[in-house]
Amino acid sequence: AGESDHQPFERCVNFPVSVVLPAAGTGERTGLQTPKQFCSFLGRPLISYTIQAFERVSWIQSIVVVVLKENMALMTDIIQRFQHRKVRVVPGGSTRHRSICSGVLALGELEGEESHAAVQPKVVIIHDAVRPFVEADFLYKIAMAAKEQGAAGAIRPLVSTVIATTSEGYLDHSLDRAKYRASEMPQGFTYDVIYQAYQRCTESDFDFGTECLHLALQYCGVSAKLIEGPPTLWKVTYKRDLAAAESIIKETLSRSACVVTGASAQAVTLAGTLQKAARTWDMELNVIPDLKGDNGSYLLTEWNFILVSGSLPCLSEVEAILTDFKAANRAPLHPFVIVWVHLSSSDELSISRTMAEQVAIMDLASAAKLQNIFLYGIQIHQSKDAEHWERSVLRVTEITSALIRERSPALVGQLLQA
Amino acid sequence: AGESDHQPFERCVNFPVSVVLPAAGTGERTGLQTPKQFCSFLGRPLISYTIQAFERVSWIQSIVVVVLKENMALMTDIIQRFQHRKVRVVPGGSTRHRSICSGVLALGELEGEESHAAVQPKVVIIHDAVRPFVEADFLYKIAMAAKEQGAAGAIRPLVSTVIATTSEGYLDHSLDRAKYRASEMPQGFTYDVIYQAYQRCTESDFDFGTECLHLALQYCGVSAKLIEGPPTLWKVTYKRDLAAAESIIKETLSRSACVVTGASAQAVTLAGTLQKAARTWDMELNVIPDLKGDNGSYLLTEWNFILVSGSLPCLSEVEAILTDFKAANRAPLHPFVIVWVHLSSSDELSISRTMAEQVAIMDLASAAKLQNIFLYGIQIHQSKDAEHWERSVLRVTEITSALIRERSPALVGQLLQA
Ligand SMILES: [Mg+2]
Ligand SMILES: [Mg+2]
Repeated sequence: AGESDHQPFERCVNFPVSVVLPAAGTGERTGLQTPKQFCSFLGRPLISYTIQAFERVSWIQSIVVVVLKENMALMTDIIQRFQHRKVRVVPGGSTRHRSICSGVLALGELEGEESHAAVQPKVVIIHDAVRPFVEADFLYKIAMAAKEQGAAGAIRPLVSTVIATTSEGYLDHSLDRAKYRASEMPQGFTYDVIYQAYQRCTESDFDFGTECLHLALQYCGVSAKLIEGPPTLWKVTYKRDLAAAESIIKETLSRSACVVTGASAQAVTLAGTLQKAARTWDMELNVIPDLKGDNGSYLLTEWNFILVSGSLPCLSEVEAILTDFKAANRAPLHPFVIVWVHLSSSDELSISRTMAEQVAIMDLASAAKLQNIFLYGIQIHQSKDAEHWERSVLRVTEITSALIRERSPALVGQLLQA
Repeated sequence: AGESDHQPFERCVNFPVSVVLPAAGTGERTGLQTPKQFCSFLGRPLISYTIQAFERVSWIQSIVVVVLKENMALMTDIIQRFQHRKVRVVPGGSTRHRSICSGVLALGELEGEESHAAVQPKVVIIHDAVRPFVEADFLYKIAMAAKEQGAAGAIRPLVSTVIATTSEGYLDHSLDRAKYRASEMPQGFTYDVIYQAYQRCTESDFDFGTECLHLALQYCGVSAKLIEGPPTLWKVTYKRDLAAAESIIKETLSRSACVVTGASAQAVTLAGTLQKAARTWDMELNVIPDLKGDNGSYLLTEWNFILVSGSLPCLSEVEAILTDFKAANRAPLHPFVIVWVHLSSSDELSISRTMAEQVAIMDLASAAKLQNIFLYGIQIHQSKDAEHWERSVLRVTEITSALIRERSPALVGQLLQA
């Protein structure tokens, strides 16, 4: 139950496919020191998301990442830290084509060398490290078309008119948008086509060219099949794209949460209200009494948790779930959220904590944060005034949604009032 | 003091310039119901930001916004609500060129009609409603070049290779990226050139064309001057761009805050620490004792506020500043943030509030929210343990920065613990 990244209808190819990810760019267009592929989103570098997108596809056998020599150690560390399998790192060339060529040659060397499992691929998919949102479906289309035609590439409609300029900086002519497309990534080639293209092309191609489809046409006579891709193929290019990527990643991580109610009838009622509200936030929300038995499998998923608790002392249930996570030996790759909703009984008319209690909550949250668990609390006070109670419940749903979506590191350990 | 949107070195043109903003698009590429130009960011529609970008430029005399007939009332309401001056709304045509043409004709009708102040412009700048981050500097370049050459347009380097496709969907050829550019907005034309271009062009141009520079070339023989623009000219096109735009808007609103310390020596010390930390968040932070005299002018700026207070009862100082805002008759167009940092004296060893106090804070914050003021509290407990105190101060800086940047509506009225 509850495996959000399971893809039930994945189509398989019946020939070996490998991937080359050129990641030797310096990314000067973001205006940042760090190249985009190494920029972190919720503690994880962009390139790790891209690798994950390929690793999730069962029929992709291996991935070669090409980086600058000086980034070899950094990349190797990322692969270990985020537990990537199927990945090899090779040093890149000084231009895009030299880097891709290094990757293609590395795939050829696989045969009979370190691993008998990996064979020389029939099809090579080339993708950019900075396009992390590529989907399995589209990779399938590219792989199949590449096998059939020798070459295939993603295209998108042009967003702007393309114009030719005179050497003095004036308009020469504008192109009819309907006849042209933007060439995007991924592209796919049979191994033979991409290998031959790089064998035959010139030094000038290596130095100034950027388009693999062009080499396949010019040096192998292969006219690539062009396939219209979804907007998700977009490339992280400018500083603004970093915010867009972070927002997409946060949205993905906020798709599902599991409400653990315990036995309290009031907790179950509150959970039902949360579940109704969650439909409007586009979040899947499952309600369970505890994490025992089959429900223990939630501990292994990418779901967020909402613990609704009526009991005192307040912290014991939170401590218990953190212990469960430790026991499940789960090392989450992104921060996930536990919102602890504490139902105060109606005779607790004041909000009173000692400094020691406050410090205990904060310490627990700080320790959890090191394990990539962001813990926040919400206290809701029972009220016999129906209107007051409804307003408080509405606030619980709003705060819960905001905490899960915004995932703010500065606010962990806070006990908010509903 | 402290007017963050003052542009001290604005260059002026000495001829009348008006603007046409076509905003009749339906924005199907975002996948949203609302056309992008009417999507709200922090409660304010995108088109209002774009209009503001032009209104801030002193030498722009008038702006014509062209919208679908069914959006006339909506647009008129936006203009009133966000207090735009210089703006007229006209109903648009069924295509981009028909809309721009309606705008140009409306500018011609200005003369001698409703207002003697507005004269027929020498230069017309055409811009997209969904490119809100255009800067005065660049508008100046376009206006000057348009006056001199008859037409001028923004260009950007191509992000992707452009390819020509065969009718069967295969690669025909790829264009040499170095020889082509993306045509962007704004574009500028002398009134005569754009007026004649639309008089002479065909129905087919009106129906299927999109490029004004092309019409100027074909029908007036004017070859536009092309000027490389900054990445900020980018167009909000896809759903991901909404997140990018929101992030840029939030960053702009988080550039400056004013720390009000009162007379307490401890508050002044804490303010100094905040000021040091703010340098690493890229925020300008001014420290002042109160908002009296000259400092009252801060109430009229787009600054955020951090109130550091040691006194009890806790809320009186917050109430006082809210009253000051009301007295200053300021209607902020975006939510701005007041973070109230309460220094608890060392003998308050417990965090104790009655429900009534809690409700009072929340009610105050809810009322302020209706005025576009987001109020959050942070409580810091004095400690004789130097290490503990330092950790708390660090937490105050982290939480303050997060609250100002994230500006979460769900968390207003919360009293966080440092
Ligand atoms: Mg290419
Ligand atoms: Mg145009």
